[in-house]
Amino acid sequence: MYNMDKLYEAVAAKGHVCVGLDTSPSYLPPSFLRGAASEADAVLAYNRALIAATIDAAACYKVQIAYYEALGLAGLVAYAQTLAAVRERGGLVIADIKRGDIADTAQQYARAHFEGDFEADFVTLSPYMGMDSIEPWFSYTETKGKGAFVLMRTSNKGMKDFEYRELKTGGRLYDAVGDRLSELAEIRPGRYGYGAFGAVVGADPKSGAEREEAAAVRKQRGNLFFLIPGYGAQGGAAGDAALLLRDGNGGVVNASRSILRAWQASLPVGEEAVAVTPDAAAEAARKAVLDMRDALRAAAAGDAG
Amino acid sequence: MYNMDKLYEAVAAKGHVCVGLDTSPSYLPPSFLRGAASEADAVLAYNRALIAATIDAAACYKVQIAYYEALGLAGLVAYAQTLAAVRERGGLVIADIKRGDIADTAQQYARAHFEGDFEADFVTLSPYMGMDSIEPWFSYTETKGKGAFVLMRTSNKGMKDFEYRELKTGGRLYDAVGDRLSELAEIRPGRYGYGAFGAVVGADPKSGAEREEAAAVRKQRGNLFFLIPGYGAQGGAAGDAALLLRDGNGGVVNASRSILRAWQASLPVGEEAVAVTPDAAAEAARKAVLDMRDALRAAAAGDAG
Repeated sequence: MYNMDKLYEAVAAKGHVCVGLDTSPSYLPPSFLRGAASEADAVLAYNRALIAATIDAAACYKVQIAYYEALGLAGLVAYAQTLAAVRERGGLVIADIKRGDIADTAQQYARAHFEGDFEADFVTLSPYMGMDSIEPWFSYTETKGKGAFVLMRTSNKGMKDFEYRELKTGGRLYDAVGDRLSELAEIRPGRYGYGAFGAVVGADPKSGAEREEAAAVRKQRGNLFFLIPGYGAQGGAAGDAALLLRDGNGGVVNASRSILRAWQASLPVGEEAVAVTPDAAAEAARKAVLDMRDALRAAAAGDAG
Repeated sequence: MYNMDKLYEAVAAKGHVCVGLDTSPSYLPPSFLRGAASEADAVLAYNRALIAATIDAAACYKVQIAYYEALGLAGLVAYAQTLAAVRERGGLVIADIKRGDIADTAQQYARAHFEGDFEADFVTLSPYMGMDSIEPWFSYTETKGKGAFVLMRTSNKGMKDFEYRELKTGGRLYDAVGDRLSELAEIRPGRYGYGAFGAVVGADPKSGAEREEAAAVRKQRGNLFFLIPGYGAQGGAAGDAALLLRDGNGGVVNASRSILRAWQASLPVGEEAVAVTPDAAAEAARKAVLDMRDALRAAAAGDAG
């Protein structure tokens, strides 16, 4: 069984939420920073508290390695231990690393992120250099069930610069990437109709034409499970994300800041941030996940109906 | 003064060689592995010996982080100390990390690789997500002189999958990337005609038509300094690389395995690898760098004549 099959089952059981642990120390309640030996230690403690509070309501976690690299070597210790904290509880974790390099180098990266200190269940990959930068990772689907999400159509403004360019032979660059990913998915079809590798497709707020585009992408890429960023703080709503789901499954929707900083939003008027306890912060994150889960389920049901 | 200006001066003084420290433990002479506490320690010791032996003959060093990540946390300690070893000797070092992510994340990455434990002089970046994934790095040109090489036209087989696709509006995808990089270079023009950020353009072995293409790329991208991979073990020759240089400067040519494994090539018939001393291994690497430097200088002079 591929990790992508496990993710499908997790969505069916627990909803579509992917908790993004892009944990900047600036997002932490003061109660986690007080007494911590370092910012990296405080980040790890906060991640552990959030994982414990949300493991039954989140389909998976996505850990953005940049926030840990920014804290240096100590940050990468926190990164490794965050991945381990999810996996020890039986959760699924996506290493958001967006790697893409020549085959020899890709083999080294795959060893780094699918084995050893930094072992994750999934990674994110960047396709610019071509399919020989993706294929070395793909051998791990067979041996360890590992999965990946390859950048296809992202939700940032710069998406228009290259991903969205029209090709001479028809379609846009992201369609060409999608074509190759659909072919790859056929090689290792999972048990629920989604291949072992999927795609990153963003849920930015959409005009009518863009909503049609999103629906077309979902229809055209029937065998690709989607990792959907852009929800919440990045502006996407449940209805936008639901366009990229299918039959109530087929994708996970990532939110980071709206969960990590939920404790701030839940502060009663006049209450000081310093008074927020670790338990209250974890509970606020849990509530944000449950609300998001319910909003996505309702939107997905509306979309299917 | 931008680091790109310093690199131009280093090429003028020392030649075009970029020593690629893609140091797999499998490339090491047994004398470095014997007695080392770990593979990561052996890799670091080997890197330090090679840096000491080549610092006067190499324009710069490129450290491929994948080979260090593959050794886990200990590998990243070796990575950080390898960068430091180059910089302590006054050399220039490129962190080959090929990052590319949304602006908030790019800021975290820039902090990680232009400050602190992993500070490098240059990074490599991937353009797939668009220019908002590049711009947060660019602010460091102004404050710290930092530079970057953005993937444009690489030397691997998969280059044809996406980089080489023709666009509806004319040109190929890599031309569109080049256009945006040329614009960026105009914003921070260096003192030698090359902008603070450059491009990765590969030197794979070329047919007649491909040689014409390389010459056209060099001519068209007058303000981009090139990082040129694909030499040596990847098949490119000095004449291929020279097509991407201009007036004897304008690019550095990376070689990794042909330098890291030079000690093997220099073994006399019948001599055992175990007998190779650390000094002999470093000397073999130095000779490989000098030979490559001379071949590139000769080819660049022939090209100009």
